[in-house]
Parts: sequence; structure tokens; C-alpha cells
Amino acid sequence: MQNERINIAVIGASGYTGADLIRLAIRHPNIAIKSLVAKTHAGQSAGAVFPHFHGFGLPNMVDVSEVDWDQIDAVFCGLPHGAAHEIIAKLPVHLKIIDMSADFRLRDPETYQTWYGAPHGATELLKQAVYGLSEHYREAIKAARLTACPGCYPTATLLALLPLVKAGMIDTADLIIDAKSGVSGAGRGLKQNTLFCEAGEGLSPYGVANHRHAPEIEQELARASGRQVTVNFTPHLAPMSRGELVTCYLRLNEGIGADDLRMRLRDAYTEAPFVEVLNEGLIPATQHVRGSNYCRIAVFADRIPGRAIVISTLDNLVKGSAGQALQNFNLMFGFDETTGLTQLPLFP
Amino acid sequence: MQNERINIAVIGASGYTGADLIRLAIRHPNIAIKSLVAKTHAGQSAGAVFPHFHGFGLPNMVDVSEVDWDQIDAVFCGLPHGAAHEIIAKLPVHLKIIDMSADFRLRDPETYQTWYGAPHGATELLKQAVYGLSEHYREAIKAARLTACPGCYPTATLLALLPLVKAGMIDTADLIIDAKSGVSGAGRGLKQNTLFCEAGEGLSPYGVANHRHAPEIEQELARASGRQVTVNFTPHLAPMSRGELVTCYLRLNEGIGADDLRMRLRDAYTEAPFVEVLNEGLIPATQHVRGSNYCRIAVFADRIPGRAIVISTLDNLVKGSAGQALQNFNLMFGFDETTGLTQLPLFP
Amino acid sequence: MQNERINIAVIGASGYTGADLIRLAIRHPNIAIKSLVAKTHAGQSAGAVFPHFHGFGLPNMVDVSEVDWDQIDAVFCGLPHGAAHEIIAKLPVHLKIIDMSADFRLRDPETYQTWYGAPHGATELLKQAVYGLSEHYREAIKAARLTACPGCYPTATLLALLPLVKAGMIDTADLIIDAKSGVSGAGRGLKQNTLFCEAGEGLSPYGVANHRHAPEIEQELARASGRQVTVNFTPHLAPMSRGELVTCYLRLNEGIGADDLRMRLRDAYTEAPFVEVLNEGLIPATQHVRGSNYCRIAVFADRIPGRAIVISTLDNLVKGSAGQALQNFNLMFGFDETTGLTQLPLFP
Amino acid sequence: MQNERINIAVIGASGYTGADLIRLAIRHPNIAIKSLVAKTHAGQSAGAVFPHFHGFGLPNMVDVSEVDWDQIDAVFCGLPHGAAHEIIAKLPVHLKIIDMSADFRLRDPETYQTWYGAPHGATELLKQAVYGLSEHYREAIKAARLTACPGCYPTATLLALLPLVKAGMIDTADLIIDAKSGVSGAGRGLKQNTLFCEAGEGLSPYGVANHRHAPEIEQELARASGRQVTVNFTPHLAPMSRGELVTCYLRLNEGIGADDLRMRLRDAYTEAPFVEVLNEGLIPATQHVRGSNYCRIAVFADRIPGRAIVISTLDNLVKGSAGQALQNFNLMFGFDETTGLTQLPLFP
Repeated sequence: MQNERINIAVIGASGYTGADLIRLAIRHPNIAIKSLVAKTHAGQSAGAVFPHFHGFGLPNMVDVSEVDWDQIDAVFCGLPHGAAHEIIAKLPVHLKIIDMSADFRLRDPETYQTWYGAPHGATELLKQAVYGLSEHYREAIKAARLTACPGCYPTATLLALLPLVKAGMIDTADLIIDAKSGVSGAGRGLKQNTLFCEAGEGLSPYGVANHRHAPEIEQELARASGRQVTVNFTPHLAPMSRGELVTCYLRLNEGIGADDLRMRLRDAYTEAPFVEVLNEGLIPATQHVRGSNYCRIAVFADRIPGRAIVISTLDNLVKGSAGQALQNFNLMFGFDETTGLTQLPLFP
Repeated sequence: MQNERINIAVIGASGYTGADLIRLAIRHPNIAIKSLVAKTHAGQSAGAVFPHFHGFGLPNMVDVSEVDWDQIDAVFCGLPHGAAHEIIAKLPVHLKIIDMSADFRLRDPETYQTWYGAPHGATELLKQAVYGLSEHYREAIKAARLTACPGCYPTATLLALLPLVKAGMIDTADLIIDAKSGVSGAGRGLKQNTLFCEAGEGLSPYGVANHRHAPEIEQELARASGRQVTVNFTPHLAPMSRGELVTCYLRLNEGIGADDLRMRLRDAYTEAPFVEVLNEGLIPATQHVRGSNYCRIAVFADRIPGRAIVISTLDNLVKGSAGQALQNFNLMFGFDETTGLTQLPLFP
Repeated sequence: MQNERINIAVIGASGYTGADLIRLAIRHPNIAIKSLVAKTHAGQSAGAVFPHFHGFGLPNMVDVSEVDWDQIDAVFCGLPHGAAHEIIAKLPVHLKIIDMSADFRLRDPETYQTWYGAPHGATELLKQAVYGLSEHYREAIKAARLTACPGCYPTATLLALLPLVKAGMIDTADLIIDAKSGVSGAGRGLKQNTLFCEAGEGLSPYGVANHRHAPEIEQELARASGRQVTVNFTPHLAPMSRGELVTCYLRLNEGIGADDLRMRLRDAYTEAPFVEVLNEGLIPATQHVRGSNYCRIAVFADRIPGRAIVISTLDNLVKGSAGQALQNFNLMFGFDETTGLTQLPLFP
Repeated sequence: MQNERINIAVIGASGYTGADLIRLAIRHPNIAIKSLVAKTHAGQSAGAVFPHFHGFGLPNMVDVSEVDWDQIDAVFCGLPHGAAHEIIAKLPVHLKIIDMSADFRLRDPETYQTWYGAPHGATELLKQAVYGLSEHYREAIKAARLTACPGCYPTATLLALLPLVKAGMIDTADLIIDAKSGVSGAGRGLKQNTLFCEAGEGLSPYGVANHRHAPEIEQELARASGRQVTVNFTPHLAPMSRGELVTCYLRLNEGIGADDLRMRLRDAYTEAPFVEVLNEGLIPATQHVRGSNYCRIAVFADRIPGRAIVISTLDNLVKGSAGQALQNFNLMFGFDETTGLTQLPLFP
């Protein structure tokens, strides 16, 4: 099986998420890229869409209607929400699906409709979907047909907070998550605010008090705590292409200190090859995970008594998206979890 | 008096703060730059130290011992802390002093010693110093001999929070200030973490739970509220040269809503030419104040009931340092507060 | 006349060039901004289109049909080529026009058609247009009704080369101009290659051997030398918002050395307030002219005998566009050439 | 042999070149990193010196005196020039050495002294050194004990020009090389011009007409052409961490056209896995090779008759340094040339 090749198709291959999936999949020893699907770019070579792919023998982009699904084993989907569930719902049942869109993350179709502005069109499939936070749903992912990879912010946040909430260490009524992201998180679509001259040399909050990753974080924290959770989640756009960092301000439950949090996180991730809990005093930075599938978490005591700060960082396109998708693929197909994902961070 | 020229010396002229002061002072209609003092660069031309100053007829850098103080009316000091109070203490009494260092910001010498690691060497002078947050100490500044300009973070934070604390609208026991700054805030000294390759394309927290601007913020909030205040203040370094943004997470006192905060801030700054409180829904960004003396503040309701988010942004080298210093100079010498400070933001 | 206010309209006010014109015009003591014209943004406030203009009392954007031309004295036009001459051709004759587009730069309509792909629709007007390279056409500009401001690259290049060509010092058959520009030169329109993630952290040539600024440079060098000139002009996109630098590789005519070039340039610009010829050994950089109307030029001997290198730098949006437009406005209306243009470079 | 592990030491492990070598070596299937040598950082963990290495089980940094050379098979040296040959001269003879410094690149000790300001202290060893431009000295490298990896600029330039010069297609008396590099090329040492605030958002020429990579380029072109060559080589610092692009302006010999150059380059690199000659019309960019060992070359006809433009781009830390060093290591030890070097470019 070491030499087995799983035939994959990538739907939404012309976006940044699709591209990073392709980048990693090309060198994955157990993957053969059979189809690259991209609606408006159908007919173009991969190198025309992404010049850095020129010369790597990729198939041309095709329309979804042109794919011979009989030859495909697994599908990675990097479409925008809405488009994703429409296409996924029509895929043959023999396919395993790793979805990087937002369409199967929220378990409750009503919550989906509230935040995404349209009814969910594949509610039956939604029931089967497994939330693809690899470290926390490993066994379910192994058995899943459809994995819904978490958003980048929820990945960074939940890896930091889930073990603490499960252990009852922090007050879920007082969670403040200040998040910072590089510009690639906004995708390759043409928008004024992601132009170099607009995003460069500046920092801007966005989606204040209404970002779609908030309900996703809340869903998982509620599940872990057994009670409804409302978080403050405030993202900011930073002038860098990749990288994401969340600074979580937490109120500790009675008798708990920052060191307890750190120890809890250590224990939770002993077996997790991609999550590293830093020693006391070390400060994580997006620079130190760039291009890699690693997530780094650090815990600090607050000067305000009874509070702590937990900081979590990852590359939004790798562990926050395409890397985690491949990690889930590895789990779903019985490969070692780290296969094809061991690239070190690129620094500087 | 419109044509009057005040003779100034700039001490610490070879740092970024000094440079921005010079940039603005050159075009100030009531200033004549007589002396530029810089210890290690003494003897060099201003253009050798800062090539962008080449050709503007500035005096050469000199050692502090070479200045003829009889010809000087006002001194701007951009030295590092420690060095600042040593030199300022020895200046002739006829000089008015606008200090941009940290040395005269903290009223309590013990707090100074705790945070700056050495005893304060000019405690008598410290008693005379006026905290130079122009909009809140306008009258005292007009009468001051020595103005201690606030740090960049405290300026952004206090402009946002002081009116709210004075009005008793927010809970001073639950103040979380997540701050982001451009790299120029770290100065022109050679440090590994401010190299292009280290700071670029990445975002990193620093001084977590122990940044020196925390006690300064606390001092002023305590003064306004009449009780001791401890804040969470967590700064992050963003990959841009200029710009600073603080995101403040606040618990509202009973019966107060986000709109009340906005209205209060509006009222507080009706007469303030450089502080703008944005309409509901508008989001401030550092890009929109770059190179200017403006500070922009916006208020948002939180999804967590009873909480609000207040965001404040400015250029750390202008309103956060040299611009506010000139604003205080204008007040101290009876010029219009905006003289020499009306440059618009540079965007893109 | 010192207090006279000229009423201006800015057509194409929603682009970067228009914005920088507005930024400078707001503080110009002899300008009153009466109309901001922007087709697709008509009806919006200036602050909605450019948040950094929020709060400066600008008129709303309007359609060109809404302008009351009787109240206007001068028009600045920042439209794309093609659109510019269509609108300018219909403007009332009492208006003085400073065009920042490419439409009136090329004197020969056929050359225009060759490079811009469509016939010139206002050839009569074209005959009246004066090429607005302020330092070289000062007298003609003073008398002009319509000034065609040069492109950013031609400005940087011609300020460096025109005096040398006029003096017969360099071989016009062997001119190589390697140019580098910040991203704002590509405008505010949505294009994939100017997205932050595409242009950031990378450098890319573009328009190799077919950039539209080549014929403009050639036209002026031919005019100065009396013979046809073909140049190599190769631009590159650098990851910065503002700034432009051209590195010119020149073959010297018999008996000429690098020092002669420097001396010639010095002489040529003795009276030019915005052009600075650097001393031997000093190296210009875009950082040192950012946000200002200054152009800096330096001359170096080549290691290849008989050759020299001349480097010229400016801010593409200021001296390369809006600043030079205002400089021409000053000349056309009899104000001091530097009025409203004395802002120092913003560094860092 | 597929599983064979060569024990290596990295001298100069605390610089950017050393770090990128380590990054790649960690995942090289035939390398075991035994010693990391760094003078001033001796005693520190690799993760303390480079936080992105935290958690990868690297040995601590040691002083060169602490290495047990009997356990080492190969040495990579990333020291500054001068320091490199001093240490290398003392290494036991059983070691194969891949030097990334400048010390063994220039065959002529006098040229070395002229450009590096001190006599060469290991002239005997210099005679044995093979110039490590992998694609052009493949056989010699296989047999070498000491390989001197070319500078980053010479690598980009020579890969583009050597085949053309060897074929007598271009005039070696008229070579103009305009080069642009990211900031990492200047190393991790503390210098004012590589601070974020100095290098950011700006572009600056440096080493005009006196950069040390010129004689290295000239040496190889002279060797290939059989006559002395003097080139114009003018580097510029661009605001990005990685990436290098050279734009070469060439005069074609009689009867030669741009297409001939492209065809010649194609032929030269048919068997070269890391050099790609682009199809007509495609433009290379540093973004498209970032983090990878690939070099991309494109040829354009000039508008000046009889001239052509050849553009070459690579990542200065990979193909321009550590990657090429590993490529040479593979050759010297009989591994496939691409082993450990197949990472795709990281975009965006």
C-alpha cells in the first residue's frame, strides 16, 4: 500500500486553496492528480492559471461535466460556499470527498441560512458530514465519506480552546478572540480591498461582530461544553500573504492557572504531529509556520488576575485549509497522517 | 505673531521619532530648526543620517555639548528613556521642553523604576511635567514648561477610552486592549526582530503581559476613574512601517449601549481637530491615517450582550509621537493647534 | 493674488492619480475643489470612495454631465486614455486643462493609434497640447490651455536624459532603460496581477519590449537630438505601493566622462526646485522621495570603458503624475511653481 | 544506497544560508545532520536561534572546536568570506566540502584580493576547488572534494548567458546585467539598510559598478569565450525577503535572433531538472520560484535591432545558495541530482 496511488480530482482548482492543495498533492507519494476542475478557466493549462505550476505535468483545467468520475477515488473541493454543496450533492457515491468550503461545517441548516444568506441545498448530505478538525475528530474522519474541513480561523481557535473547554477550565461566557490574517484568506477573486495598494502597509479590522467563522467556533465550543456559547470574534487583515494568528483572552475558572492550561494542551496534543504547545515564555509568530502544516500554541498569564492569554498560529492555506484537507485525506485512506505534509516552515 | 519663528533644537535627531519631527518642523511656519543633536552621528550632515533630508538646508548633527542654548527657545527630545531625563534635567530653565521619550510619562517614580528597571534621576522635574495627551490636557499643556508626550499605544488607547471611563460607561476591571503596530515603533536601532526578513510577511505578538505602555494607560484610566486599574494590553508587530491600531474589548456598565459610547466620544471631540469618531458601520484602518496627525475611532456592538468593541487608529510616528509633540508645541507657544500638522493621510 | 482661489474640477476622481491630486489640492492655498467627477461612483461621497478623505469637506462625486462648468476655471483629468480625450474635447473653451492621461502626450496621431490601438479622436486639440514636463517646457506650459502631463516613467527618464541628449553627450542609438515601479502605477482597477498576494513578495518584468511609455520617451529624445530614436525600455513591477526608479545604461560620446554628465545635469537643474542631482557616490532610492514631488538623479561611471549609468527616482503618483500636474497648474496660473508641493518625503 | 545516510556538519548554521540548508537537509532522505556550528551562538538550541526549527530534533549549535570530525562525511559551509577559507583549510582530508561562501569561487588569488580586500589564505586548496554551477560543471563536481557554490547573482546570470557565450551568439563586450534581489541576500547580520523600515516599501540600487559578483560572472564568461570580459552588473534591493531576477541586455552577433537564443538555451538544459526555459511570450517572476530550487529563463527580442533581452529568475537562498549546494552534494555522493530538492514553489 505504500506505493498505492489514489486518483484525485480537485474542484475549484483555480483558487488559492485549490492551488495549495495541488502544490502539496503533486509531491504526495500516494496521490495521482487526475482532474483539475475550474469553471471559468476550463480549457486552460494549469501553468496558465498558476505560472508557478508551469512544467509539472499537470492536466489542463476542465469543466466539472468533463470529468470521468469512474477514474476518480477522491475529490477535494475548494469552491466558494453555495457552489460547493450544489456540486458535491451530485457526485457519485463511490467518491470520498474532502470539502474545504464552508458548506458542510455548520451542522444546523438554519444557522447556515442565517449566516450564509441562502437555504442549505443538501441537508441530507450535511447529516453525514464529519467536521474535519483532524486532531479532534480523527476516528470519525477515518470512517467518513464526506469531511468538512474547518475554516482557517476556527482551526487556529479550536485547536487552542477545545481541550480547555472540554476540561472545564475556562469561562465560555467570556471568550474574546482577536484574530489576524494574511490576505490570501480572502481568496483570488478580484476585490478592491485585497489589491496590493489597499491592503499593503496597513492593518484593518473587518467583519467586526459578524464574521462567518464565529458560529462555527461557537458550534464546536457548545458541543464540547454542553451549553450555548457566544464568542467575540474580531478578525483583522494584515499586510502579508499567508499566516494567521489568534489571540484569545480567557477568564479562568476557579482554581485554574495559566500553567494548567499549558499542561492540558500539552496532554491533548501528545500524539498530534502538527500541533506544538510552546514552552513558557516562547512567543509564536506566523513567520515560523509559513508554508507548513504546523500549528503553534502558547499560553500566558494575564496581569488581570484570573485571566489568561492563549495565542495560536498557523498558515491559513496549509493547516488552515489545504494541508488539513490532505491530513484528513490521509486519515480517510489509511495513510500515515503526516504523509506529504512534512515540509518545514519557509523562513525567511 | 503669524510670522514669528521659534528657534528649536531636536535632541535625538537620528531616530525615527526625531526624523518625523524634523520632517514636520521644516514646513512649520513658526519654527526655525537651529540644532540637531545626535550623539553618535555628531558631525554628520542631516542628509548623511537620513538621505531623504538631503537638500533641505538642515544644520549638521552636533553633540549636545555644542549647542548654544541661548539661541534656542524650545527643545524636542526623542532620546531613549533614561538618556532623556539625564539630558533634560540639565537644560537651562528658559527652554520649553517637549519630551517624546518615556521618562516623564509616569507620575510615580516607583512605577517608573518597576517598569524601566532603574531609578528615575529627575524626580523634581517629573513633578512639573504635564502629560501631553493634547486633547485631554490642553489647558495644562498651554501652561507647561515640560510636556511628556504619551506613548503611541497610550495615545490611541486613551483617546478611545478616557471619555468613556470619565463618564462611567465601562467596567474598568475588564479592559482588554489588543494592539497592533508597524515596525517603526521599535525605532532605528539595530535589532534582529526588526530586520526586513524577520518582520516581513509575518505577524508576531511581543511584550505579552509586560509591555511598558500598560502602566501608562493604567495611570491615566485610574486618574479618570478614581480607582486603580489593571488592563490587559497585548501588542503585536505587523509587517508595515507605520500605523497602529488598538482593538479594545469593553464591558458596558448597566444601561449603556454601543451607541451611547459613540455619542459620548463624538461629544468629547467636537472641538478636537485631529480626532474623528466614525459613523456607525465604518471601519478604521491604519492606511487611512498614514503620515498624518489624525486619529480615528469607531464603536461597535459586540455579539456578546453587554459588551462593545472600540477601535482606534493613528500613525505611531505622527499622532503617536512627533505630530502630537508639535501639537503640544503649538499649544505651549500660542499657535493654532493645527499649525504645520494639516498634511492629509498618504494613501495608497 | 496670494489669496486667489482657482476653482477646479477633477475628472477621474476615483483613481489613484485623481486621489493624489485631491490630497495635494486640498492643502493648496490657491485652489478650491468644486467638482469631483467619477462615472461609476457618481453620487457617492469622497469618503466612501477613499476612506482617507472622510472628514475633509469634499464635494460628492458626480457624473460629468452634472458639472456647472461656468463655475470652474481649471480641470484636472485623471481618466484612462481614450476616455480622456473624448471628454476633454467637449469641455468649454474657458477652461484650462491639465491632463494626466496618455491622450495628449504623443504628438503624432499615428503613433498614438499604433500604441493605443484606436484612432485619436481629438487631433485638433492634440496640436494645441503642450507636453507637461515642467522643467523642460516651462514657458510653453505657462501659455498653454491644455497641458499633457508625461507618464511617470518618461518623467523619471527624460529628466535624466534630456539634458544629456541635448548636449550631444550620449549615443542615442544605444539607450537601455531598466525601470522599476510600485504597484500604484497600475491603477485602482481590479486586475489579478495587482492583488496583494500576486504582487507581494515578488518582482516581475512586464510589457517587455512593448510598453507604451517607450514611444513617449523616444518622441522627446528625438525632438532633442534631431534624429529618430529607439530605446530599450523594460519595466518591472516591485512589491511597493509608490515609487519608481529607472536605471539608464548609456554609451558616452567621444571625450565625455561620467563627471561631465553630472555637471551637465547640475547646470540644467540649477533653477529647478524639485530636481536634485546627487553628489558623486550617493545612491538614490525610492524611499527617499516617497509622497513628495522631488526627483533625484545620480551619475556613475561604468566599469565598461566609455559607458555610464544614470539613475533617476521619483514618486510615480506625485512627480510622476499628480504633483507634476499641480506644478503645471501653478505655471499656467502664475503661482509660484512650488505652491502646495513642498511636502517632504515620508520616511520611513 | 537508497537508504544510506551521509553524516553532515553545517558550519555557519546561524545565517540565512545555513538555515535554508538545514531546512532542506532535514527532509533529505540521505542526510543525517550531526553538527551545527555557529561561533557566537554556540551552546544554543537550533530553535533558539531559528524559532521555526523548534521541535525538529536538531542538535544544539556548537563551536567548531567541538565537532568530532571522524563522525562527519560532508561539510556545508555558510560562513562569510575570509572566515570560510580559514576554517575549511583546517578540515580533515576525509571530508567532502560544499562551500557556499565566496572564498573559492574566484580562481585567481589576485582577483580575490582585489575584490575582497585581503590575500587569499588557502591558495593550494583553491586550486582543487570546482566551481559549483551544477548544470555546467556536473562531471567535475562529481569528482570534487571541494565545491565552491556560485553566488546567487552569478548563478542566475550564468545559467542564462553561458550557453549563449559558448555558442558565440552574443557580443561579450556589450553585456549589461540589471539585477534585483530580495533582502535575505544581505544576510542576517544587523545592518541599517536591511531593517524593515529602511528596505520596506522602496527600491534602491547598491554596489553600483563595484559589486563582488561582477568578477565572478566575468571569470566564467571569459572561460567560456576565451577572451577577457568586463560586464556591467548593477544590483538593486527590492522589498521582498526572497527572490532574485536578472534582466540581461545583450547585443546579438551577426545573423542571430532572439529565437536562436531561446533554442540554444532549450538545448543546453534538456537534461537539467531545475532549469526551465519559458515559451515565447511568458514572463518569469520571482514569485513563481519562491522557496524552490528552480531557475526560469525567458528570451525576448528587443525593439532595438540586433539586441535581445534575457531574463532569469531564482530563489537566492535555494538555487542561488543552499539548494544548489545540496544539488552539488547529491552529485558528489552519487545520489539523484534532485533528491531532497523537489519542493514546489510556494505561491502565494
